[in-house]
Amino acid sequence: MRILLIGAAGRLGTAVGGALADRGHDVLAVGRTSGDLRFDIADPAQITELYERVGKVDAVASAAGDVPYKPVADMTPDDYESAFRGKVLSQVELVRQGLANVAERGSFTLVTGVLSREPIPTGSAASMANGALDAFVRAAAIEIAPQRINAVSATVFTESLEEYGDFFPGIRPVDVADVAQAYVRSVEGGQTGQVYTLD
Amino acid sequence: MRILLIGAAGRLGTAVGGALADRGHDVLAVGRTSGDLRFDIADPAQITELYERVGKVDAVASAAGDVPYKPVADMTPDDYESAFRGKVLSQVELVRQGLANVAERGSFTLVTGVLSREPIPTGSAASMANGALDAFVRAAAIEIAPQRINAVSATVFTESLEEYGDFFPGIRPVDVADVAQAYVRSVEGGQTGQVYTLD
Repeated sequence: MRILLIGAAGRLGTAVGGALADRGHDVLAVGRTSGDLRFDIADPAQITELYERVGKVDAVASAAGDVPYKPVADMTPDDYESAFRGKVLSQVELVRQGLANVAERGSFTLVTGVLSREPIPTGSAASMANGALDAFVRAAAIEIAPQRINAVSATVFTESLEEYGDFFPGIRPVDVADVAQAYVRSVEGGQTGQVYTLD
Repeated sequence: MRILLIGAAGRLGTAVGGALADRGHDVLAVGRTSGDLRFDIADPAQITELYERVGKVDAVASAAGDVPYKPVADMTPDDYESAFRGKVLSQVELVRQGLANVAERGSFTLVTGVLSREPIPTGSAASMANGALDAFVRAAAIEIAPQRINAVSATVFTESLEEYGDFFPGIRPVDVADVAQAYVRSVEGGQTGQVYTLD
C-alpha cells in the first residue's frame, strides 16, 4: 500500500515507518522539519497542500501531536487551545480533508495516548486532547465507512523512560515496536472505530 | 450551599436549578441572555468577570455547551474550533478560573453527553467535545483535590424527543429530572473524577 505517515521522524514515527516498510508498504514520510514532505499539520491550510502534493493514498497514519504539560492552575486558555490545535484539530483535519484522497477501503490511524484513561499531574491538556480523539474516532467511523479510522493509545514507551519515566511511577512501559504493530493492525486489518490500547 | 449554575435557563439548567433549590441550596443563575447574571462562558474574560462578581461559592454546576452538528465531510476547521470553545474550553476555564473561588471541599460539575460513548451521524464535533471533557474531569480531579470535579453524561432527554428523537432511533430516553439528580449527587456527594452516565 501507499501510506502517508505524519510525524515520521519522531520516536514513534520512526518505528511505525520501519514496521510498515518491513511489511512491504511504500511509506511517504511527512515531517515539520525533516523528510521529503515538509508540512505542519497544525495548520489546516498545509494539510490541503500536503494532499494536493501526494494525491491518492491507501492509508494515512499519524504519529504527530504536541500538547503542553503544566499544573491545571498554571494553564492558560492558550495552552488548552494549543493542545487542541496541536493534537486534536490537526488529526481531525487530516481525516476530514483526506476523505477525498484515501482509497475506498483505506484507513486513517491517529495517535492518542493513555492519559485519557489514566491521568497524571500536569497532564490535563493531554488528557483532554486524547479523550477528544478517542471519541472522534468512534464518531467518524460510522460516517466514513467503508473508509476506516482507528487510533493507537499507548502508555509511556520503554525507549522514553529516561526522559518521561518520572511522570509514570510504577507503570509498566511498552516497547515502541509493539506500538508500531498496532498501526500495522489498523492499516492491514478490517476494523474501524477502534482505539487500540497498549498499557 | 451557595451554588453557581451556568446555563440556568435551558431545559437541563432549569431542572438542575429546581433540584438544587428543592434541596435547600442557594442557586445563583447564570445565562447568556437571561437571569440576573448575564455572562457568556465561551469567552474566558467573561468567566473572570463572573467570578469577580459572585465571589466565593461552594459549588459550580454547568449545564451549558454549544456544538455544531453536520456530517464530517461538511464540517470546517471553524466548526470543530467552535465546538471546542463552546463546550470544552468554556467549562475547562470555569474550573481553572474557579479554583480560587470554590470552597476547599467544594465541587465543579460539568455537562458532557452520551455521544463520546455512542456516536450518531452528524455528531463528530459533539463526540469530540464530550470525550475531551470526560477525560479532563478525570485529569483535573487528581490535581485539584480536596476540591472535587465530576461530569454528567446523559443520552437524549424524554422532554427533548420531539426535537431530537429522530437522531436517537431505538434509544431509551432519560427524564431530565433524573439527570438533574446526578448534579445533586455530584454536589452533595464525596466523589471526584467521575462521569455519571445516564443512558
